[in-house]
Amino acid sequence: MVRVDAADVYEVEVKVPADHDAVRDALASVGAEVGATVEQADTYYDAPHRDFAATDEALRVRRVRADGEEDARLTYKGPKVDAESKTREEIETGVEDAGDAGAILEALDFSPAATVRKRRTYYAYGEYTVVLDDVEGLGEYVEVEREAAEADVERALEEAYEVLESLGLDPADQIRTSYLGLLLE
Amino acid sequence: MVRVDAADVYEVEVKVPADHDAVRDALASVGAEVGATVEQADTYYDAPHRDFAATDEALRVRRVRADGEEDARLTYKGPKVDAESKTREEIETGVEDAGDAGAILEALDFSPAATVRKRRTYYAYGEYTVVLDDVEGLGEYVEVEREAAEADVERALEEAYEVLESLGLDPADQIRTSYLGLLLE
Repeated sequence: MVRVDAADVYEVEVKVPADHDAVRDALASVGAEVGATVEQADTYYDAPHRDFAATDEALRVRRVRADGEEDARLTYKGPKVDAESKTREEIETGVEDAGDAGAILEALDFSPAATVRKRRTYYAYGEYTVVLDDVEGLGEYVEVEREAAEADVERALEEAYEVLESLGLDPADQIRTSYLGLLLE
Repeated sequence: MVRVDAADVYEVEVKVPADHDAVRDALASVGAEVGATVEQADTYYDAPHRDFAATDEALRVRRVRADGEEDARLTYKGPKVDAESKTREEIETGVEDAGDAGAILEALDFSPAATVRKRRTYYAYGEYTVVLDDVEGLGEYVEVEREAAEADVERALEEAYEVLESLGLDPADQIRTSYLGLLLE
């Protein structure tokens, strides 16, 4: 998966299902550095005036809990910019109160479609971030991701596959469906 | 005007056009305390799926600049709860970046209808806040406001008129139209 934000930064990410115990051992032996663990609850909204599934858009309120502090963000994900690069626009801002942000959306007749809850641990591994996601109702996944300029996207994707292999994981297991998509299946 | 927020706090406010120089002198002589001066830019959005003018709702991104710092808020104002009390629901949350919040709304096909820009100075006067607004394109206004429980709304409104009179202003000059409404007239 490759996403692009408004500043033309491409987010290269590869996700596979994986047993976390084995991956944690592999991360330790390659010398990856463990970072924060956070709890994320992502509520996705349906729109009153169009079908986001058909338009390939998403609107999300994310609550993040880390070290007892809660943080919230409102994010719009646009449709894929072109089929080949699988990039999409993302616009995001922090919000003071996730409950109020959701209440504003609901007052405008956007309706909560589903909430994806996960416990996420970050590792730094070279230029890459390795993310261990334990997703409620879905199980354990590993994502390898980094930002890249447009010209570096192909190389970054190849290297992400190499990172997966160095952790004992198979790039062929890659899952391109979002957690939301998997939950709604 | 009386507004009510989600916690059933009623916002009683009375607004009149007024020359600020004279009102500042009057505020000084009654011993009101001058507070902060802020610059506010309020962008109101039209919705793609309904006519806010007809439904009596509003969606606003407010940028506040004070002491060189910028702050932003996203606010939904619901239709009047009942005709008699002129109360309406307000749901508001701070947002990290007004530009991104506006860009998310525009990506969802909400469109900026108008921006109200004003310089606002607060005074504390007993239980009331007196607000001196210099509105771009409209001129100078004074608002007298306080919060009140439902049972105290009538009394608070009467006292707000008395505050106006003590500042040499005439409650009969009250303008019930919002600055947005005045700008769009």
